[in-house]
Amino acid sequence: VPDYVPEPSAEYRRIRLRLAYDGTRFCGWQVQKRERTVQQVIELALQKMHDRRVPITGAGRTDSGVHAAGQAAHFDTELLTVPPYKFAPALNSLLPSDVRILEAEEADRAFDARRSAKAREYRYYTASAERLSPFRSPYVLALRTLPDIRKLNGYARAVTGEHDFSAFAAAGDQSASRVRYIYSASWYPEGPMLVFRIVGNAFLWRMVRSLVGTMLELETRGEPEQAMVEILRSRERSDAGATAAPRGLFLHRVLYE
Amino acid sequence: VPDYVPEPSAEYRRIRLRLAYDGTRFCGWQVQKRERTVQQVIELALQKMHDRRVPITGAGRTDSGVHAAGQAAHFDTELLTVPPYKFAPALNSLLPSDVRILEAEEADRAFDARRSAKAREYRYYTASAERLSPFRSPYVLALRTLPDIRKLNGYARAVTGEHDFSAFAAAGDQSASRVRYIYSASWYPEGPMLVFRIVGNAFLWRMVRSLVGTMLELETRGEPEQAMVEILRSRERSDAGATAAPRGLFLHRVLYE
Repeated sequence: VPDYVPEPSAEYRRIRLRLAYDGTRFCGWQVQKRERTVQQVIELALQKMHDRRVPITGAGRTDSGVHAAGQAAHFDTELLTVPPYKFAPALNSLLPSDVRILEAEEADRAFDARRSAKAREYRYYTASAERLSPFRSPYVLALRTLPDIRKLNGYARAVTGEHDFSAFAAAGDQSASRVRYIYSASWYPEGPMLVFRIVGNAFLWRMVRSLVGTMLELETRGEPEQAMVEILRSRERSDAGATAAPRGLFLHRVLYE
Repeated sequence: VPDYVPEPSAEYRRIRLRLAYDGTRFCGWQVQKRERTVQQVIELALQKMHDRRVPITGAGRTDSGVHAAGQAAHFDTELLTVPPYKFAPALNSLLPSDVRILEAEEADRAFDARRSAKAREYRYYTASAERLSPFRSPYVLALRTLPDIRKLNGYARAVTGEHDFSAFAAAGDQSASRVRYIYSASWYPEGPMLVFRIVGNAFLWRMVRSLVGTMLELETRGEPEQAMVEILRSRERSDAGATAAPRGLFLHRVLYE
């Protein structure tokens, strides 16, 4: 793939995608030299269709091993004879089976998958190792025992609203501000699983996995809800718990106006 | 693991297991030096419980990458204070999350998971790449287009009953006789998938995958049912099609009296 990106001609349309991927064998979303990434395999498929490099923009940069049930992205195309809905089957026929385009449609030229996004929803799946099907295990964190959901929901309440989430940002997070708005955060049961659902305007690097790892540690130690409030207030990453494994995390959907 | 296997003491009971595994990261069932196999990880867990090597016998030796929804196995234990049903949670707490013991119960000492088995059921999952969820892709063969189920069922009819299956045995099959009895073989739709279900007294090496690969090739070429009959009669492996990928194959269950 050449580094030079020619401008699309004046006659182009913007295509918006909704897509899913199994993150297990990807080094995350963003293109990296020598690593297999989701953005790279999709750009490779677009290049085959266009005979030139076609960059895509994703709503969120998922990490290595993190899955997506509803990632969003956009790209520009000058293939005006291809009806927009045809991009999904055309791309799927060129993509490996661990990425699927769920939907493709024409968007306004002002639409930007990342900047237009109003909120992101993530879900983190856990289950007790004893009851976890081996065929779900690549997508669920196996726990020795199932935690107390009331305790977990106490910690989750502490993070809703607007906060400085420095205590839950991985070292290397590049954000200018670490203030984020969390619309909702809660744990719910789903079959043999306990799932953490969080909706926020945006997230710091590894924030969801740091929140999950911390809540699970606090529950194991029997800490009160107040412990989560204090970690958040400290703004110190060292006060929070370990980062939970990527296998349980899904970018569930991206919300626009 | 030492090679010497001491006899269990006179006071022992035989435990029968039903288990499931995701074959993706296993080099099949049978213990091999330097490779991760299902038998090896279970024997390692049993060794931790018994402080000695405890060999297990499986009903069928699944190949590298092949899954099991209902494999059967047995072992002998002198841990008479452990109630038989406790072996499932005890082993699961020691096993990696891609193997799960579904059931453990005491069996007659004459029960042998392999020799007592009357029949085995395998299922092979396929779907059109366009409609296949990325989270199902490790367990399903993705096809360019979904084949004609009536054609496939025509080929499947040709293999039911007693036949010499030499045309569908992989080079290296060690069986003395290649005659096997197939109780039933058919394709059925399941959601967006087409599934091949086959029940037989026993199977040659890679026989199910060779049958599936051949049926899919015959369907693509539009061959009549008679083509399958002739391949079977030829007893020549070179007359049959390619061996279908292991990812779509499940040892579904093992049937006893």
